[in-house]
Amino acid sequence: MQRSMKFNQCVHQQACGNGRDRVGNWHIQDPASQRLTWNKPPKSVLVIKKIRDVSLLQPFKELCIFLIEQKNMIVYVERKVLEDPAIANDESFVAVRKNFCTFREDYDDISKRVDFIICLGGDGTLLYASSLFQESVPPVMAFHLGSLGFLTPFNFDTYQSQVTQVIEGNAAIILRSRLKVRVVKEGREKKGSLQGRSEEKSMIISNGDVEPARKTMQYQVLNEVVVDRGPSSYLSNVDLFLDGHLITTVQGDGVIVSTPTGSTAYAVAAGASMIHPNVPAIMITPICPHSLSFRPIVVPAGVELKIMLSREARNTAWVSLDGRKRQEIGHGDSITITTSCFPVPSICFRDPVNDWFESLAQCLHWNVRKKQSHLSSEEDED
Amino acid sequence: MQRSMKFNQCVHQQACGNGRDRVGNWHIQDPASQRLTWNKPPKSVLVIKKIRDVSLLQPFKELCIFLIEQKNMIVYVERKVLEDPAIANDESFVAVRKNFCTFREDYDDISKRVDFIICLGGDGTLLYASSLFQESVPPVMAFHLGSLGFLTPFNFDTYQSQVTQVIEGNAAIILRSRLKVRVVKEGREKKGSLQGRSEEKSMIISNGDVEPARKTMQYQVLNEVVVDRGPSSYLSNVDLFLDGHLITTVQGDGVIVSTPTGSTAYAVAAGASMIHPNVPAIMITPICPHSLSFRPIVVPAGVELKIMLSREARNTAWVSLDGRKRQEIGHGDSITITTSCFPVPSICFRDPVNDWFESLAQCLHWNVRKKQSHLSSEEDED
Amino acid sequence: MQRSMKFNQCVHQQACGNGRDRVGNWHIQDPASQRLTWNKPPKSVLVIKKIRDVSLLQPFKELCIFLIEQKNMIVYVERKVLEDPAIANDESFVAVRKNFCTFREDYDDISKRVDFIICLGGDGTLLYASSLFQESVPPVMAFHLGSLGFLTPFNFDTYQSQVTQVIEGNAAIILRSRLKVRVVKEGREKKGSLQGRSEEKSMIISNGDVEPARKTMQYQVLNEVVVDRGPSSYLSNVDLFLDGHLITTVQGDGVIVSTPTGSTAYAVAAGASMIHPNVPAIMITPICPHSLSFRPIVVPAGVELKIMLSREARNTAWVSLDGRKRQEIGHGDSITITTSCFPVPSICFRDPVNDWFESLAQCLHWNVRKKQSHLSSEEDED
Amino acid sequence: MQRSMKFNQCVHQQACGNGRDRVGNWHIQDPASQRLTWNKPPKSVLVIKKIRDVSLLQPFKELCIFLIEQKNMIVYVERKVLEDPAIANDESFVAVRKNFCTFREDYDDISKRVDFIICLGGDGTLLYASSLFQESVPPVMAFHLGSLGFLTPFNFDTYQSQVTQVIEGNAAIILRSRLKVRVVKEGREKKGSLQGRSEEKSMIISNGDVEPARKTMQYQVLNEVVVDRGPSSYLSNVDLFLDGHLITTVQGDGVIVSTPTGSTAYAVAAGASMIHPNVPAIMITPICPHSLSFRPIVVPAGVELKIMLSREARNTAWVSLDGRKRQEIGHGDSITITTSCFPVPSICFRDPVNDWFESLAQCLHWNVRKKQSHLSSEEDED
Repeated sequence: MQRSMKFNQCVHQQACGNGRDRVGNWHIQDPASQRLTWNKPPKSVLVIKKIRDVSLLQPFKELCIFLIEQKNMIVYVERKVLEDPAIANDESFVAVRKNFCTFREDYDDISKRVDFIICLGGDGTLLYASSLFQESVPPVMAFHLGSLGFLTPFNFDTYQSQVTQVIEGNAAIILRSRLKVRVVKEGREKKGSLQGRSEEKSMIISNGDVEPARKTMQYQVLNEVVVDRGPSSYLSNVDLFLDGHLITTVQGDGVIVSTPTGSTAYAVAAGASMIHPNVPAIMITPICPHSLSFRPIVVPAGVELKIMLSREARNTAWVSLDGRKRQEIGHGDSITITTSCFPVPSICFRDPVNDWFESLAQCLHWNVRKKQSHLSSEEDED
Repeated sequence: MQRSMKFNQCVHQQACGNGRDRVGNWHIQDPASQRLTWNKPPKSVLVIKKIRDVSLLQPFKELCIFLIEQKNMIVYVERKVLEDPAIANDESFVAVRKNFCTFREDYDDISKRVDFIICLGGDGTLLYASSLFQESVPPVMAFHLGSLGFLTPFNFDTYQSQVTQVIEGNAAIILRSRLKVRVVKEGREKKGSLQGRSEEKSMIISNGDVEPARKTMQYQVLNEVVVDRGPSSYLSNVDLFLDGHLITTVQGDGVIVSTPTGSTAYAVAAGASMIHPNVPAIMITPICPHSLSFRPIVVPAGVELKIMLSREARNTAWVSLDGRKRQEIGHGDSITITTSCFPVPSICFRDPVNDWFESLAQCLHWNVRKKQSHLSSEEDED
Repeated sequence: MQRSMKFNQCVHQQACGNGRDRVGNWHIQDPASQRLTWNKPPKSVLVIKKIRDVSLLQPFKELCIFLIEQKNMIVYVERKVLEDPAIANDESFVAVRKNFCTFREDYDDISKRVDFIICLGGDGTLLYASSLFQESVPPVMAFHLGSLGFLTPFNFDTYQSQVTQVIEGNAAIILRSRLKVRVVKEGREKKGSLQGRSEEKSMIISNGDVEPARKTMQYQVLNEVVVDRGPSSYLSNVDLFLDGHLITTVQGDGVIVSTPTGSTAYAVAAGASMIHPNVPAIMITPICPHSLSFRPIVVPAGVELKIMLSREARNTAWVSLDGRKRQEIGHGDSITITTSCFPVPSICFRDPVNDWFESLAQCLHWNVRKKQSHLSSEEDED
Repeated sequence: MQRSMKFNQCVHQQACGNGRDRVGNWHIQDPASQRLTWNKPPKSVLVIKKIRDVSLLQPFKELCIFLIEQKNMIVYVERKVLEDPAIANDESFVAVRKNFCTFREDYDDISKRVDFIICLGGDGTLLYASSLFQESVPPVMAFHLGSLGFLTPFNFDTYQSQVTQVIEGNAAIILRSRLKVRVVKEGREKKGSLQGRSEEKSMIISNGDVEPARKTMQYQVLNEVVVDRGPSSYLSNVDLFLDGHLITTVQGDGVIVSTPTGSTAYAVAAGASMIHPNVPAIMITPICPHSLSFRPIVVPAGVELKIMLSREARNTAWVSLDGRKRQEIGHGDSITITTSCFPVPSICFRDPVNDWFESLAQCLHWNVRKKQSHLSSEEDED
């Protein structure tokens, strides 16, 4: 049975597929059946282009002209993309450029104004798109241009027909779960070896005294949260809590908490198994753990994880979120991680299963190597 | 919110927790909330004892006497357990023994007569219990006696109070998913290098001709299906299909398809990550794969996997199911694997999360090793 | 400083490079400096061709004609190679064919009659060449034709100039160490579960009684000795002794004892590091070990290893040598392994270091993959 | 055959066991035969104590009193050890303390004045001892006190007889190879993203111009050189050269170049095999490499490795040496690594082979785990 995901603003949230229902169960979509459906025809599209990559300029311009002139779409582009001299000085592009809606990251909120997103240029563009939408995310169509990737199934050669299919609602969708990450930093006087480079301390003045204040930040993460030793050459020592219970102490270079989508990124380099994005799970991967029997572990999507510096840790740790927002973590600070209610709906080239195995085959050279025998001489000789 | 699992015959099937609902979704239980509930007080218990282990005799006898005399339960025991001379010749046990209901594996069907199961003696007893119930399985309470295990959370020291709690319905449950495995063997003339040791070929005579017949066998597997090179020293070559599509060819010692429960058994030794039993997933782990970038992969519980010998394979492969029922697989034969509708309801000592991490800690020596530094001398010296 | 290795019969043994000298030291060659030198011009060459590979016929014929007609060499070929109908029926090849010296494996001893060896067709041909020479081995020149390989550095396109260089003594040599493996099987009455399929039991009749006799076999191994669980689905349990001391028990699918050359074959698939053939070492790699902290270990070339079935093993194990000579090992049998005095002198395409890294790059797709970022979005976007 | 290693100043260098001899060969000691021999009775001993560890105070005092009063040794102790208030204020220790020779790290050169070294307190103390001797190193006797370790074979319980044996020359020795590491930093103007936190830039003013100067530092390393991404969350990108040839680019968290001694430290956590210290080799281990087929590699001890930032690297890298001396590496800087002529002679508790396997067994819980079956139920049940 197929199921439609209705998109356009304000329905995104209902689309949140992996959640607890009224009788305490968790739902996961049947991997092969999710389809994109528009409530009303899409009118606006955000185009994300990897910057500083000259090879993307021509495809970018072609695509924008196609979207504006052929498809009558409103095209949103980040201002810094247009400030690239190669675009700013391109006379042939002047007429088109003035039709763009531009915005600046961290200043302008476009989260309610975009019907879907097109990414040009590698997995990083999808991570960036994710970071722009801290709540519900419009469907994302990602082209691999030049570089292979796990998140970019579309080939640009046939972009016109592919984009048309998407606008017409003719596409499969995979909901990539994200992690909701809450970083809580206890205000504290900076002294001793844990005194840091954090410039984020805030103060609340009350009763005439200077009181350090607690500071909470929240992030939506598509790939992973990494807690590591940062610039230190000492082992990091962090405690890992699951639903409030101390599960283990991770001693090593650090720990990666990733989504299934992130399992094929940093986590796989640290030894993790690769998890299909439709599995409702969170992966915990130690980085170069001191204990050789500490393997990556996979827990249900419904749990709450918390990471804190161990009491015996001599050094701070550093956290980063999808490779960004790097910050120092001291004693008493905590990082709380749950599955987000706001997944990233990724538009499939074929379907969630085929796209995923295709990306594995491409990125990992599966079946590329000539078949050889490692065990036998007889195979050759007898 | 908590949810009860009602047990006693005929409700087991409804208890099948991980399944597709009417709108095409998959359900998974919230890990911490499943509870055991009896429709009517349990009256019969199957006691499974690892045979040939002298240290288990005394606990076995104590437990049986307790169940019969204190709890008025009907106790089922496999006949070969009682044929152990140490039991058969034990005069003090004569009176008790005659109260047992005995049965023989593969002859007597007790699947509808048992309210719950008690296992004494290692993970193998749970695998054995699973094999006795090819459809729904009564709740299982497993004691680790002597050996550590991932599936045996109960300590025998306090068995009386623990068993009483279970009889009173005071226990958490985890549903361990099983795999439904269908092995289809094409009848064929035995010749050439693929001629095997299989004694399972069957013939159908029709129209006066000898016609090879297809043979289908079905199994319920709690840990894993293993397809390997068997006695050959050549690489095995098997094709892996997912929902009908050829995904990859596995070239190496073989491949393991396991449940989350099985992820901590053979699969982890072959490099897999460890998956909590509440994650609705199937794990595919290559054994010593020729391609160094072929990592274990985790797919959603809802898919259908199929394994066949590759066309270019020069040798047969061998399949085994939870380490048993080993048989040869030739060209044209197939092994089809889906998530079973009949999980094994395991009774928790505390709850699914704590029990699992406790077993990891015990079996893998987590946090046992003295904390050391591998990176630094300064830690010691500065 | 460079050093020459003088070849032609009877000097091979002195060429044995890795050995204990008079003051108890072990020598290893400086990797980049070993050169091939002929005592007298080479006159005879053994050509080894992978059989049943149609694509090799034309190169084989071309090469043989070149060696006989241009270089006036005596060419040795195994008889079964010439019995291939495609060769036997080739009229254009008749005149050449009668100039061959033919031999049969296990019947004719050519070990003293061959000045050097040319291999066509994959790593297996080198293993086969090694198996033909149980004592000193003439220099081997190996062409990769069609398949990639770690042991076949030469490209056939320029075979004429390459072969000429070798005949003129203009080539670097790497001495690939071999293992001397002694399998000792205790004669025994066959009964119980350890009764096997071995057809190799021999009897000595003395004093009118039937007495089981000990049987010793010895092998030279270029890649590895594998001891595994064979057709059983149970764990194998073998004891590992080093210089007479019990080091550990290996519980798992088995254990691989390999040369550095073999480290890139089966061992690497089982998780081993890759060792340059010039390192005087023996590698011990557990296969899917039960203990997750049992990593592959590398010991000095000078030690003596012994493998025996553990006392508690319930099943026999199976040993194979470079993927051949598979045989069953029961209680009391032993496998003793030391570094052989008869390495395989492999002729380098460039030199031992470059050839090795070139083969790694080719076989493992190093540096093939487009460079990507797994950690960062900013790399793409900031 | 046994071989003696003569110790006392000025003979250390001849003891340099792993080296190229006159005919271009490399020597390695036979692992089981190296013995300690004194040219003249040892008179002076350096005692190294892990600081800030209260549990070591009593053993330290006992040992020093024993060495001074019973053995008439001159005892060298670092000044900061004696400045520990627990020692400084210990009245019972006053008389002994004044017999010490004290020194300060980086100020006083004791490298020619010490006959042997005793370490109390973990592998870090041996790394520290190594760092004090940049040329030849006196024999080291290391006690594990409290913590397990790979480098500390002696148990303190019987220290009196053990120390007496060593003084009498009754001990086996293992020469642990070190790496000679040359870090060359090109002076450069600090600007752009590579401008760093290095405070080590030096300037030479000539002809009125500011000219950046090259700076070379040299280190002796017992465990490993680590080059990593430091505080950055981007991948590091470093080029690896072997004997002047570019071998590969390492893209990932970094790379570890270690001695066999270091193979059981950070390298094993990053996936390396464990190499016995008598194997003359250098291990290269990528840290979380982007390419999944990049395995750790082992090269002969005689090669020269060089690491430089790749041309395409966007970020600097950081180098650390045995976990210390952490510094930033920019474009053009280089790290050159060869096997040092100055190994660390470690005194064995039994012999090099038994000590090593004993430490593996202790540190990795080998054979601790109860033997279980992961494959079979039948083992339990049939």
